[in-house]
Amino acid sequence: MITLDITISLDGYVAGPHPTLEAPLGEGAMGLHEWLFAAASWRSRHGHEGGEATADSDVYEEMVSATGAQIMGRRMFSGGAGPWESDPNAGGWWGDDPPFGIPVFVLTHHEREPLVLGTTTFTFVTGGIEQALTLAREAAGGRNVAIAGGASAAQQFLGAGLVDELQLHIAPVLLGAGLPLFGGVGPLELEPLRVLDSPRASHLRYRVSR
Amino acid sequence: MITLDITISLDGYVAGPHPTLEAPLGEGAMGLHEWLFAAASWRSRHGHEGGEATADSDVYEEMVSATGAQIMGRRMFSGGAGPWESDPNAGGWWGDDPPFGIPVFVLTHHEREPLVLGTTTFTFVTGGIEQALTLAREAAGGRNVAIAGGASAAQQFLGAGLVDELQLHIAPVLLGAGLPLFGGVGPLELEPLRVLDSPRASHLRYRVSR
Repeated sequence: MITLDITISLDGYVAGPHPTLEAPLGEGAMGLHEWLFAAASWRSRHGHEGGEATADSDVYEEMVSATGAQIMGRRMFSGGAGPWESDPNAGGWWGDDPPFGIPVFVLTHHEREPLVLGTTTFTFVTGGIEQALTLAREAAGGRNVAIAGGASAAQQFLGAGLVDELQLHIAPVLLGAGLPLFGGVGPLELEPLRVLDSPRASHLRYRVSR
Repeated sequence: MITLDITISLDGYVAGPHPTLEAPLGEGAMGLHEWLFAAASWRSRHGHEGGEATADSDVYEEMVSATGAQIMGRRMFSGGAGPWESDPNAGGWWGDDPPFGIPVFVLTHHEREPLVLGTTTFTFVTGGIEQALTLAREAAGGRNVAIAGGASAAQQFLGAGLVDELQLHIAPVLLGAGLPLFGGVGPLELEPLRVLDSPRASHLRYRVSR
C-alpha cells in the first residue's frame, strides 16, 4: 500500500510563505510540527528522552512501524531552498545518522550513486515517480511505501492517483498564505477511515481513489 | 458563548466556484452537506423520517439544542446570488416554515420590519455585527449565539475575534477552487477541544481567541 502522511495547517497549507534556509517551511510554519516533536515515540526514535504519550505518539509509531520504504523529493532530502540545491552531490540536511533506518528513494534530475548514512540508504531516482515506486515497492518487503514529502512529491503522487491512504495531521494554526496541499491535484474520491486527536493535532485518515 | 459551525471541503472551501441560483454553493459543492442531510436528527427536525444515527446526527442535535439565537448574512437569508438580492423586501428561500424555531438576526444594509414565518422570527439588523450580537445575546436566553453563515458573515465574526468556539465539519470532498473559509481572516489562536467522525464528515471543535 502507498501511504501519504502529511501535516497541514487548519487553512490547508503544508508550508507558509517566504521559505528561507533558517525557516525552510516558511513564516509561521514551525507550529505545524509541534505535535510531532512533542510525541514520545518521535523523541524516542530520534534519541531523545521524554515526550507525551498521546494519540500523536501512537499515530507516529504506527506509521513508522508499518512503513518499509520511503520516497521523498529532492528538496526534502537536501533541506529546502539553499546552497544544497545547486550542488547535486551535496549531502542532505539529515546529518550522519538520518532517522529513517529504511530504504529512502529520492526523486531528482541528477544521477548519483546511493548514499549510505548510518542505517539509512538514500537511492537517487531520475526516472520519475513510477520508477521510484517500483524500486520502493521491491525494497519495502511487503510493508507500506510512504511518500515522505515535500509538497511537490506529495502532489505528484496524489495527482497521479498513486496514493492508497492519506493521513492528514491537521495542526491548529493558520498560516494565511503558503503552499496549499491540494493545489493542482485535481478531483479525488476520499473515504474517511479514522480520526484521532490530541490537544496538538487532529489526525484524519482517508482511503483515496481517483 | 458565540459559536460558529461551518462545513468545509477537505481543501478548505465553504463554497465551490461559479455559484448560481440552482447551485448557490457553487460547482461540486452539493457533497459538502451530505452528512447533514443524512443525519437522523436533521431529518427529524425538518419533518422527514429516517436518517442515520451517527456522530453526524449527535453533532447536529447538540448544536441545535445549545443554540438560543442565530445570526446570518443577507445572502444566506435570501438564497445566495439571485433575484432576491435586488429586492430588499423579498422573502427568504426558507419557505413559510423555516427550520430555525429561534430568533434569527439577519445582517443587511436595508431597514425592514421583522418577518415572522412559522415559529421563526427574522430581525433585520443594519448596525453591523456588533449590534447583531447585542440583540442576539439578549434573545438567546443564556444559550449560545450561533453564527449561521454564510462565508462572509463567518469571516467577519472570526476576523473580529468574536467567535468563542469554532466547529468545522470537514466533508471528504475536494472542490479545487472556491471561497476559502479563512481567507482574509488573519491570525487566530486555536485550541483543539474535540473530534468526532463518521464516514460522511469529521467534526473538529476549537476554542478560538485572537
